[in-house]
Amino acid sequence: MIVILKSNPNPAQLESLKKWIESKGIGIHESTGNSHQILGLVGDTSKLDMDLISALDIVDNVKRVQEPYKNANRKFHPEDTVVDVAGVTKIGGGNLTLIAGPCSVETEEQMVSVAKAVKAAGATVLRGGAFKPRTSPYAFQGLGKEGLRLLKIARQETGLPIVTEIMEIGQLDLFDDVDIIQVGARNMQNFNLLKELGAQKKPVLLKRGMSATYEEWLMSAEYVMSEGNENIILCERGIRTFETYTRNTLDLAAVPSLKKLSHFPVVIDPSHATGKADLVFPLAMAAVASGADGLMIEVHNDPAHALCDGKQSITPDAFWHIAKKTLDLKNFLNTQEGK
Amino acid sequence: MIVILKSNPNPAQLESLKKWIESKGIGIHESTGNSHQILGLVGDTSKLDMDLISALDIVDNVKRVQEPYKNANRKFHPEDTVVDVAGVTKIGGGNLTLIAGPCSVETEEQMVSVAKAVKAAGATVLRGGAFKPRTSPYAFQGLGKEGLRLLKIARQETGLPIVTEIMEIGQLDLFDDVDIIQVGARNMQNFNLLKELGAQKKPVLLKRGMSATYEEWLMSAEYVMSEGNENIILCERGIRTFETYTRNTLDLAAVPSLKKLSHFPVVIDPSHATGKADLVFPLAMAAVASGADGLMIEVHNDPAHALCDGKQSITPDAFWHIAKKTLDLKNFLNTQEGK
Amino acid sequence: MIVILKSNPNPAQLESLKKWIESKGIGIHESTGNSHQILGLVGDTSKLDMDLISALDIVDNVKRVQEPYKNANRKFHPEDTVVDVAGVTKIGGGNLTLIAGPCSVETEEQMVSVAKAVKAAGATVLRGGAFKPRTSPYAFQGLGKEGLRLLKIARQETGLPIVTEIMEIGQLDLFDDVDIIQVGARNMQNFNLLKELGAQKKPVLLKRGMSATYEEWLMSAEYVMSEGNENIILCERGIRTFETYTRNTLDLAAVPSLKKLSHFPVVIDPSHATGKADLVFPLAMAAVASGADGLMIEVHNDPAHALCDGKQSITPDAFWHIAKKTLDLKNFLNTQEGK
Amino acid sequence: MIVILKSNPNPAQLESLKKWIESKGIGIHESTGNSHQILGLVGDTSKLDMDLISALDIVDNVKRVQEPYKNANRKFHPEDTVVDVAGVTKIGGGNLTLIAGPCSVETEEQMVSVAKAVKAAGATVLRGGAFKPRTSPYAFQGLGKEGLRLLKIARQETGLPIVTEIMEIGQLDLFDDVDIIQVGARNMQNFNLLKELGAQKKPVLLKRGMSATYEEWLMSAEYVMSEGNENIILCERGIRTFETYTRNTLDLAAVPSLKKLSHFPVVIDPSHATGKADLVFPLAMAAVASGADGLMIEVHNDPAHALCDGKQSITPDAFWHIAKKTLDLKNFLNTQEGK
Repeated sequence: MIVILKSNPNPAQLESLKKWIESKGIGIHESTGNSHQILGLVGDTSKLDMDLISALDIVDNVKRVQEPYKNANRKFHPEDTVVDVAGVTKIGGGNLTLIAGPCSVETEEQMVSVAKAVKAAGATVLRGGAFKPRTSPYAFQGLGKEGLRLLKIARQETGLPIVTEIMEIGQLDLFDDVDIIQVGARNMQNFNLLKELGAQKKPVLLKRGMSATYEEWLMSAEYVMSEGNENIILCERGIRTFETYTRNTLDLAAVPSLKKLSHFPVVIDPSHATGKADLVFPLAMAAVASGADGLMIEVHNDPAHALCDGKQSITPDAFWHIAKKTLDLKNFLNTQEGK
Repeated sequence: MIVILKSNPNPAQLESLKKWIESKGIGIHESTGNSHQILGLVGDTSKLDMDLISALDIVDNVKRVQEPYKNANRKFHPEDTVVDVAGVTKIGGGNLTLIAGPCSVETEEQMVSVAKAVKAAGATVLRGGAFKPRTSPYAFQGLGKEGLRLLKIARQETGLPIVTEIMEIGQLDLFDDVDIIQVGARNMQNFNLLKELGAQKKPVLLKRGMSATYEEWLMSAEYVMSEGNENIILCERGIRTFETYTRNTLDLAAVPSLKKLSHFPVVIDPSHATGKADLVFPLAMAAVASGADGLMIEVHNDPAHALCDGKQSITPDAFWHIAKKTLDLKNFLNTQEGK
Repeated sequence: MIVILKSNPNPAQLESLKKWIESKGIGIHESTGNSHQILGLVGDTSKLDMDLISALDIVDNVKRVQEPYKNANRKFHPEDTVVDVAGVTKIGGGNLTLIAGPCSVETEEQMVSVAKAVKAAGATVLRGGAFKPRTSPYAFQGLGKEGLRLLKIARQETGLPIVTEIMEIGQLDLFDDVDIIQVGARNMQNFNLLKELGAQKKPVLLKRGMSATYEEWLMSAEYVMSEGNENIILCERGIRTFETYTRNTLDLAAVPSLKKLSHFPVVIDPSHATGKADLVFPLAMAAVASGADGLMIEVHNDPAHALCDGKQSITPDAFWHIAKKTLDLKNFLNTQEGK
Repeated sequence: MIVILKSNPNPAQLESLKKWIESKGIGIHESTGNSHQILGLVGDTSKLDMDLISALDIVDNVKRVQEPYKNANRKFHPEDTVVDVAGVTKIGGGNLTLIAGPCSVETEEQMVSVAKAVKAAGATVLRGGAFKPRTSPYAFQGLGKEGLRLLKIARQETGLPIVTEIMEIGQLDLFDDVDIIQVGARNMQNFNLLKELGAQKKPVLLKRGMSATYEEWLMSAEYVMSEGNENIILCERGIRTFETYTRNTLDLAAVPSLKKLSHFPVVIDPSHATGKADLVFPLAMAAVASGADGLMIEVHNDPAHALCDGKQSITPDAFWHIAKKTLDLKNFLNTQEGK
């Protein structure tokens, strides 16, 4: 961490700052430029709060040199994290994992038939929303507990492990038998929930917040890891920008960037990112080519007539096509890399 | 709601769509342009999910004519909501309410002395964080329950009602004796929490999410109102943009816009919006001139030496100056308007 | 276009509005909902200014049904535009065009050696900046005319057509012998320049503005086409968001979206989009998989030592690798699609 | 400037970097932390290109300590710039300058009558667009030369100096007799134009680009100053964000921030910032309270019927009200500050 002082700092205040820093076990390296005096802080500064130091009268600016995350940091954890899902499949480590299923769980018939269809197409994880975060209090909020029951029936019928979204700590008991717990974009900085999810061992699929930076996202992963759980899958689902043609802007630079900064598998959700069914295929292909470890895709038996699901949903037939093409692409890329 | 059809829609699908819409008790007004056929939906469309209709093969686009919120809507609730705070003060209705106090509650001495100072300067509500949402798991997370206890002592000493932030539903019992419950930016779309806060009667100070639109913000207020609580105060605290000089970008157009769209009082938090102590005063003045009903300002006994608070905090002396100038400005403006 | 009226509009004003609309040769279809009266405008509304109508006292809102661009619109121009470059190569139509070269033209030796290297690797167009838009007046602004001369020498040595950026109308004469004229992000809405480029016949590579929507971008293409030149190549180079790890956020949804909305070839510039050399390869691969018609990549003989070029530049060797992998991927995808 | 090296940098490359830096007359202060080695660059680094150094294999990151602008910098130019407008009025220095007039110049009668009305209300500068930047090639592009002629007639009739927008260098001759030359948001980084405007002496009103940071904006002012013209007025007109209710998001923190970072007067354009007539008054008041030196407001004789101007325009009567209230507010604030 580098502390840039204002010109002619009050000597007593400067002395007091230096003492305080040293009391934290951190060394100081002073340096004087033409227009600025600088303190270089030497040691583990990850627990220092930059804002505290910036508040001082004598300080012009503080700049971080080290990343503020440790457990999540590739530098201190060089090997890839490969997440084992219920002993059935693995996310990361060179695989392309297809996670598919409807936006909302509706009926047993729907869930079982979609589950069979996506499994046949090559998906290895089943998704489905039981608790749905909805902008409007008047919109369908999901089947809740009953939705979880239907998901488990579909798992039993197909052997596919299931991933579904948790909305609050109070629901944690209900997720005992879920294979991957999803944290939605709106909960990415629900720090209490993250800590609870860190204190258990199930894999956590952590979606990026709508306006979260990579650093904030990795700090949220750090919350989970700080309590002992490192089974984290990062999921990019688009960020909010000024462009309104797509629902969000899919940021595929996140894939290679997060793989460099951290050790977690990275999954892409092209359905939510774009909000348009016809963009799911090209962006799924792009995600695979960028190095993504998996895709999360909404599939619904009959989006065009059922009137029960969002515009980004595609049919099992369309998914079959996407699955085939993306898995073929992954094979091609693995061969290209000599894997 | 207006449904724009693709050219040459499948007649059977169109028939099926029209039947489904009518089955919801909504009338249809058809109209055919040069290049598009349009369905005008007549009736209460606030409970229709636009995305459902957009998903149809025959639909090109759906546009909303009515706002999706009802209870929060000025059109259906023309009088200003004035929020009574513990029978002691009112927010809205022509007053300028000053809400002040430290970012985090630290010690009894700190709380009591700041509370006395801000009261003397003209504040009528005391703020202080007991549970702190922090980006890093290694940063100070607040005193928790003990912080609430200290806040209440400061209330007892000064008579100022208190506002403090809740982080999750599980903490609700602890907030029984708090005067205003604050929902932070990261929880603006924690829908379960909003519903719980709607089911009780205490005033809710609802901060805008970092990348929330006015409509989403009002939909969150609608969640609270839909359960019966209309004591809502909206608080703008800056939105996330590309500008990095300020921590966030304060959006003062929110004040007149929200007052037009809804009936709630609107409060501005210039401290969090800018993250810079020297911008608090000019933006506090601007907020008052834009018509804000209140200001929420961080005040700390000794930001420069204590090293315990963020860069946006100001001293009691600086607050005394801000309070005097903003209250004088409010008086001037009320006189100017002939109030 | 749909005009939503305020409740109880002044009848005289409404009559006057309707007459004015009809005087423009546009029909009106009226419809009355529960809370709003609506005018549906039937006819060619592309030349109507929405803002003019929105200004009226009696109007609540105006929504567009048709896209505001005509010549650029896929609906009215269903076939792909394939841009012929100097009779030497084509952009669009199923090819992957690699455009490569240094950020700035520096010396004859540099240009010729880079040109030979990128040609050997598979590039078919040579890029190089002679006039450089620089944020700082103190930064190197390019060699100007001399840079154009060196580019042409490199073209003569390799047969590669050249693309380079124009900064203002006054330079147009100098671009007589350039094969593709590039319009940079900062000039995407330099409407006078666009019109001049429309009045000549050379291909125009039109970069997206830093915060331009697809619609605005296509309106800029419409400017060029409205003067008679349809040889337009769209180039996505990242948009400005809150994320600061990458210089910009590359929006790959632009590729399938623009190919649906319009008929132009779309090229991706992963170098400028990310500002990081190690992200160029994964995003180049992603761009190809998303369906891009070409890639524009900065290549420099020796970025690590020369100290003369930006951080997004890569060596000829690194480019050789990227070119091989992306061209192989394009072949694979063409085979996969049965082309 | 601080250069953070990667761990274990190649010694030969490091030696070469240090020599290169010293050859620019800049000193180096080395410092070694736990995980990083750092070079502190001592001297005038404003002409060093950060990107060049970041490109090096051995460099992890570069951080700037000094602002990259010099002439525009308050640190090196502590006194306020007060811009003299044609010897008739001054912008800056404690005044509130009202700049008012129609969006587009249309007829002599319109211009003269609006000019008289705004002068009577208190405006001291007349605005009006002769060359209009329009998103659509089919929209009205302004009267051009004839518009300038009408503006000058209105000046003659009222004595008000005029400000109008230039679109390209080629128009510069036509602006000989204009009092303030406006550079629009889309031209903020038209660097060639900025240099030409720097080489003449007329005041330049420099609007902020739609997604420009304060630093980029001041770098554009630096372009003008670097050629010798320091008569610059900065004009904030809203930035592009995800919020769509207002056309742009007005960033009032720009006022105190720019006044701290630089020495120029800052003017606010609430009309373009919001795109809504009913938001102009509250945001004009807020702008004055934030410390703005002036307001730029669109006024049109008859926005509701004429159908010739944008939705942000207001009538002379409405302007009379705004002018009175904002000037009264400025007087109040000056008194409050003891001026």
